[in-house]
Amino acid sequence: MHPYRSHTCGALAQADVGQTVRLSGWVHRKRDHGGVLFIDLRDHYGITQIVADSDSAALAVLEAARTESVITIDGEVKARSEGTVNAALATGAIEVYARGATVLSAAEELPMPVAGEQEYPEDIRLRYRFLDLRRETLHANIMTRTKVIRDMRTRMESAGFTEYSTPILTASSPEGARDFLVPSRIHAGKFYALPQAPQQYKQLLMVAGFDRYFQIAPCFRDEDPRADRLPGEFYQLDLEMSFVTQEEVWETMEPVIGGVFETFANGKPVTPSGSFPRIAYDDAMLKYGSDKPDLRNPLIISDVASHFTTSGFGLFEKIVAGGGTVRAIPAPGTADKSRKFFDDMNEWARSEGHAGLGYVTRKGGEFGGPIAKNHGQEGMEALYAALGLGPDDGLFFAAGKPEQAAKLAGAARTRVAEQLGLIDKDRFALCWIVDFPFYEWDEDAKKVEFAHNPFSMPQGGMAALEGQDPLTIKAFQYDLVCNGYEIASGSIRNQSPELMVKAFELVGLSKADVEERFGGLYRAFQYGAPPHGGMAAGVDRIVMLVCGAQNLREITLFPMNQRAEDLLMGAPSPASLQQLRELHLRTVEPSKG
Amino acid sequence: MHPYRSHTCGALAQADVGQTVRLSGWVHRKRDHGGVLFIDLRDHYGITQIVADSDSAALAVLEAARTESVITIDGEVKARSEGTVNAALATGAIEVYARGATVLSAAEELPMPVAGEQEYPEDIRLRYRFLDLRRETLHANIMTRTKVIRDMRTRMESAGFTEYSTPILTASSPEGARDFLVPSRIHAGKFYALPQAPQQYKQLLMVAGFDRYFQIAPCFRDEDPRADRLPGEFYQLDLEMSFVTQEEVWETMEPVIGGVFETFANGKPVTPSGSFPRIAYDDAMLKYGSDKPDLRNPLIISDVASHFTTSGFGLFEKIVAGGGTVRAIPAPGTADKSRKFFDDMNEWARSEGHAGLGYVTRKGGEFGGPIAKNHGQEGMEALYAALGLGPDDGLFFAAGKPEQAAKLAGAARTRVAEQLGLIDKDRFALCWIVDFPFYEWDEDAKKVEFAHNPFSMPQGGMAALEGQDPLTIKAFQYDLVCNGYEIASGSIRNQSPELMVKAFELVGLSKADVEERFGGLYRAFQYGAPPHGGMAAGVDRIVMLVCGAQNLREITLFPMNQRAEDLLMGAPSPASLQQLRELHLRTVEPSKG
Repeated sequence: MHPYRSHTCGALAQADVGQTVRLSGWVHRKRDHGGVLFIDLRDHYGITQIVADSDSAALAVLEAARTESVITIDGEVKARSEGTVNAALATGAIEVYARGATVLSAAEELPMPVAGEQEYPEDIRLRYRFLDLRRETLHANIMTRTKVIRDMRTRMESAGFTEYSTPILTASSPEGARDFLVPSRIHAGKFYALPQAPQQYKQLLMVAGFDRYFQIAPCFRDEDPRADRLPGEFYQLDLEMSFVTQEEVWETMEPVIGGVFETFANGKPVTPSGSFPRIAYDDAMLKYGSDKPDLRNPLIISDVASHFTTSGFGLFEKIVAGGGTVRAIPAPGTADKSRKFFDDMNEWARSEGHAGLGYVTRKGGEFGGPIAKNHGQEGMEALYAALGLGPDDGLFFAAGKPEQAAKLAGAARTRVAEQLGLIDKDRFALCWIVDFPFYEWDEDAKKVEFAHNPFSMPQGGMAALEGQDPLTIKAFQYDLVCNGYEIASGSIRNQSPELMVKAFELVGLSKADVEERFGGLYRAFQYGAPPHGGMAAGVDRIVMLVCGAQNLREITLFPMNQRAEDLLMGAPSPASLQQLRELHLRTVEPSKG
Repeated sequence: MHPYRSHTCGALAQADVGQTVRLSGWVHRKRDHGGVLFIDLRDHYGITQIVADSDSAALAVLEAARTESVITIDGEVKARSEGTVNAALATGAIEVYARGATVLSAAEELPMPVAGEQEYPEDIRLRYRFLDLRRETLHANIMTRTKVIRDMRTRMESAGFTEYSTPILTASSPEGARDFLVPSRIHAGKFYALPQAPQQYKQLLMVAGFDRYFQIAPCFRDEDPRADRLPGEFYQLDLEMSFVTQEEVWETMEPVIGGVFETFANGKPVTPSGSFPRIAYDDAMLKYGSDKPDLRNPLIISDVASHFTTSGFGLFEKIVAGGGTVRAIPAPGTADKSRKFFDDMNEWARSEGHAGLGYVTRKGGEFGGPIAKNHGQEGMEALYAALGLGPDDGLFFAAGKPEQAAKLAGAARTRVAEQLGLIDKDRFALCWIVDFPFYEWDEDAKKVEFAHNPFSMPQGGMAALEGQDPLTIKAFQYDLVCNGYEIASGSIRNQSPELMVKAFELVGLSKADVEERFGGLYRAFQYGAPPHGGMAAGVDRIVMLVCGAQNLREITLFPMNQRAEDLLMGAPSPASLQQLRELHLRTVEPSKG
């Protein structure tokens, strides 16, 4: 017999009754029922109940074994008695009567329990991650993560993509975030950088002729810790295609991403692939007040400025006259809501730094509140008719400069829907946000800047760059959004050296700047570059969504803490003097104060 | 119609004749046959012949297009005339008559050609890697690489393994090589390290209960460049299993690694999985003079010291009497080889720093050479009978201290077999080398040291550590060897805290040293660690073997040069003062001289 196990702890069932078996695993739980000892023996595959009574030669060993010790049991499979069958457990029909037991590895007193799911301080969980990972939910989340990634790979390969690994020790890339640097030993004073994304390499692969690339790619950004981002590394499903339009990227990727959600949604509805809504950026900002709209939220924002060009409500009239706008957020079925509900919303808007959130109440067709009073019955009825609102629907107003009004309206849309319970949490609503602006106005620098990244192809090409107000130029650039989270971003790339130089010129940079920042890629574009485009999807975010996890640490094997420390392995740590000497470095004490 | 292509350049065949098609790709070759222009249009999938004559509206565009420009062709599929069908090409039965052509991206004058396979200087190839990668052999090698990795994944998953990604920004690990360090911005004076291998994390995964782990793992070692190792990063098929014996690791991995070779061997014979020879380290050193024996080489070394305890050949007698040994390397069928063949071999041994390689010639049963003369006819016949050698077989001798004799004999075995053409290059001969010594004698430090790594389980456990001469203790440690290359290495791990401390004690290290070097792992072993073991296989080496490539750069997408520079992206490069300030670093000019 195998020295450790004839079966795993998830394998035995009714059909095995009578067999002599050997199992190995961890002591998950122990229960002493008056001379009869029950042990839940756990391994990766499941849990099997072990029984030892006073006749069992194993009893003494098992009694002495601490929880989480690793033991091997020899025993006999028995059917559980009628009332003790556990239908929730795969092995719930049987138990193993222990005839012998060996402790393979004794556990010390535990710093945190494994059985049960009680909350535990994060520093303990990370320092003893090997215990934390034994817990049921985290173990299951990690397994879901591996399955999601495997499913992504399979779907990408079925769609004709090949996975290529790109270098991790590479050059600093101007992607907007801060690079992690790696000092070179051979070249004093020089540094490699870890890739923020394999953006340039994947484009080089297209120029090299490899048509359809993907990679489950580790990416590195030295950013200050944020709640929704782990320090250090994260994973992208990164992909690129040659000879494609943006529509083809969308059509190719909907079955992949949508398919992943369908596979892991546990029956929750998912927007069917082939029918993800495509929403222009401008429309998204108007209707949802966000370029990451949560389409589970049924509320739609409207621009109602035209209703207030002449109004008894002077404030809105003034705002509209001054080039501002007024956005309306419906609050359907709020006839029975108290005045406090509306006032609290206004208070919340002020606390967020906005001027306030105006509102109109309506009950049985009767309008209430100062705006309604000033705007007048006729005007209000015209407004409600235009918005298709009913006799018991309230309405909030966000007024101000268009960007500010959009932002407030978007936040109010979310808050109103949450408070009214309008969001169906149990589904995955996916959509594309398209036609992002290519440039934006940088208020600080008082100049035009790239709105996203300079790799994207401007819509309209050279004609647009030469003849159009830069701030009106759109890019062939798109995001994929799920339930209010951006889960992917991509574009058709600008593969023309002339267009690239021109695009940089408009933000005040020269051809030399292009060469300095994107030397390899710019050089490659001189020697036959196919039209190409792609995107990158956030693996971690997708796993969080399908797991319903609220924190990246719940879906990551060995995360660092928010201070960017690995408490288990003890990183980062001081380097030796010899290491520093070899790397031609001296460390500098940070200056006090 | 699609703006770029209705078909790829590898798709069209006889059945498509008459169709109107659109193709896009690179101008691979142009041939002007007196007013008729032939273009080989290439993409990732293949090559299609394009024809334009003076009637074609596309002629002018195509004539002007430089090689490697990217173009789109509209045209009609025609059958090639009888004599011009190219059976070597998937699309060789047809050609496309161009009615229209557009240049999507014009190529400059090329720094190196793409068509054809001529040698080109490495710095040009790396600087213009996007052109180099378009070349047929390199493109094919890269595709083989992706397929090998995909095949590994599939086989590992079929064998019940799950792929987990382990951290890349981690702690310095004492694996014997030099770490790449990554300075921490948040923790002044501290550094992360890139993993030399995910050794500790994969063991932690076992302790955390994840049974069967694998990963196509990027590994990083800051070593001085060597011909058979690229600077920077390389990939391992890394795996670990819980509750296993070493035999189970071998039985599990033979179908995986053997299967990969079978799939990509192009019909060359591969040692059948399930029957990889298992050769003890001591036997390998004796019979092959190497722990990486090339089993395609039929020659077997023998220890013939016992034949020289009393011999007319005084040198060997003296060596044997002094504790040395004599190893014999057969040179079968060398009756017709000149004296020079044998003398050259001796010269070669001297040039390699050895004392020399003795020999005996034999022709029609008659012995020749000074050793035979001195040793005597009777002694020579006894020796030949013992070795099973025939009347026309020569024999070389490597004498000296056992390790030196083994090393020389091993090198001579290779050289003799090569010169005699005895090695069947067209097969893959796989074997396990097992029972490696746990400790070795460090001549410099005059003390016992770990022979390989301290993670391995010593055979015999605590009893061996306490009661046995350390230099006789074997480890549950093994290598997988193919055609003379180590392609994988692994062991059953020492998961007992007490054994770990004892094993370190024997090399003069304390429990505190264990805790300092392997803190996370040592801590984990206190809380229930399953017996576990695994191995890591070199992906790059396996790909080289199946591709028949001689250089790692022929199977790597974007390699660095031997000076650890990325000539395409320009890495490493100086950091800005702001970056250095943020990282609390100052660079130091290397001292002159």
